[in-house]
Amino acid sequence: MMAKIAIVIADMFEDCEYIQPAAAFKENGHAVIHVGLKSGECVKGEKEQTPVVIDAAAADVKPADYDALFIPGGYSPDKLRTDADVIRFVRSFMKDGKPVFVICHGPQLLITASVLAGRKVTGSKSIIQDIANAGGIFTDREVVIDGNLISSRNPRDLPAFCTACLEMLS
Amino acid sequence: MMAKIAIVIADMFEDCEYIQPAAAFKENGHAVIHVGLKSGECVKGEKEQTPVVIDAAAADVKPADYDALFIPGGYSPDKLRTDADVIRFVRSFMKDGKPVFVICHGPQLLITASVLAGRKVTGSKSIIQDIANAGGIFTDREVVIDGNLISSRNPRDLPAFCTACLEMLS
Repeated sequence: MMAKIAIVIADMFEDCEYIQPAAAFKENGHAVIHVGLKSGECVKGEKEQTPVVIDAAAADVKPADYDALFIPGGYSPDKLRTDADVIRFVRSFMKDGKPVFVICHGPQLLITASVLAGRKVTGSKSIIQDIANAGGIFTDREVVIDGNLISSRNPRDLPAFCTACLEMLS
Repeated sequence: MMAKIAIVIADMFEDCEYIQPAAAFKENGHAVIHVGLKSGECVKGEKEQTPVVIDAAAADVKPADYDALFIPGGYSPDKLRTDADVIRFVRSFMKDGKPVFVICHGPQLLITASVLAGRKVTGSKSIIQDIANAGGIFTDREVVIDGNLISSRNPRDLPAFCTACLEMLS
């Protein structure tokens, strides 16, 4: 079954944390749609300046049109968490129990959306305290699966992360 | 009275949020010492690649040798908050009630140090939820002064921020 996956992304994403999962999704027949701050804008990765064109602004999309959500890491989540439309969009996937995949700094958007209380989650070492303060249960493992939510810590976890995401989608 | 001010800094600091306060401190006769992850390393600002040479690693400095602490914003605090020596250093200034100056993402280090509970503070819009979850009382003003702690939101607040910091040091 093909899934429509919304990738929420902005400038300064961690290149490999976008590239590898996006490629894995597409290779397995899933469609990826880039949701960001401004439709048509070209955003860039932090280290390799990987270009990504935003397909739709968060203000113009409906969560009902997507089957799953993916939030790459780097500093992209920091730039997205001030946008109320992005936060509303992200919150909706968690409330509906649809698959949500986050890695590295991705959980920052779940913190701002106030949907981490009581959830097992992992992420970048730098946001451990933020996750705990948000009521999340931080677990230091390469992949943490809690219901609809799959999370990983950093680029080294990407193979296991991609495998777990594809398994949930299948 | 000359003060010795420790500036805690790493790569990807917001250039102007370092440049302007550091210049103001020096013009007013205060000494600034750059404390970071590795002594002798040259770190760079995010937008203008302003170079800053680290005078001492946090592991090798004693808070007792400094009169005040300044934490510029940008993504420098994110890179510093995983270092236990940096966190211990920062926590010490708050516990001792010495002047602590933070702007933008600077409060992230205070969150990891668990010293924000019940404190009035401001900062970057992106970390409002993190500040609240840490027990901080977020206030949307250009300068917030709570005892020893002075905080501002972003580069636009720099003139008021510098004035308030210099006043506390005098």
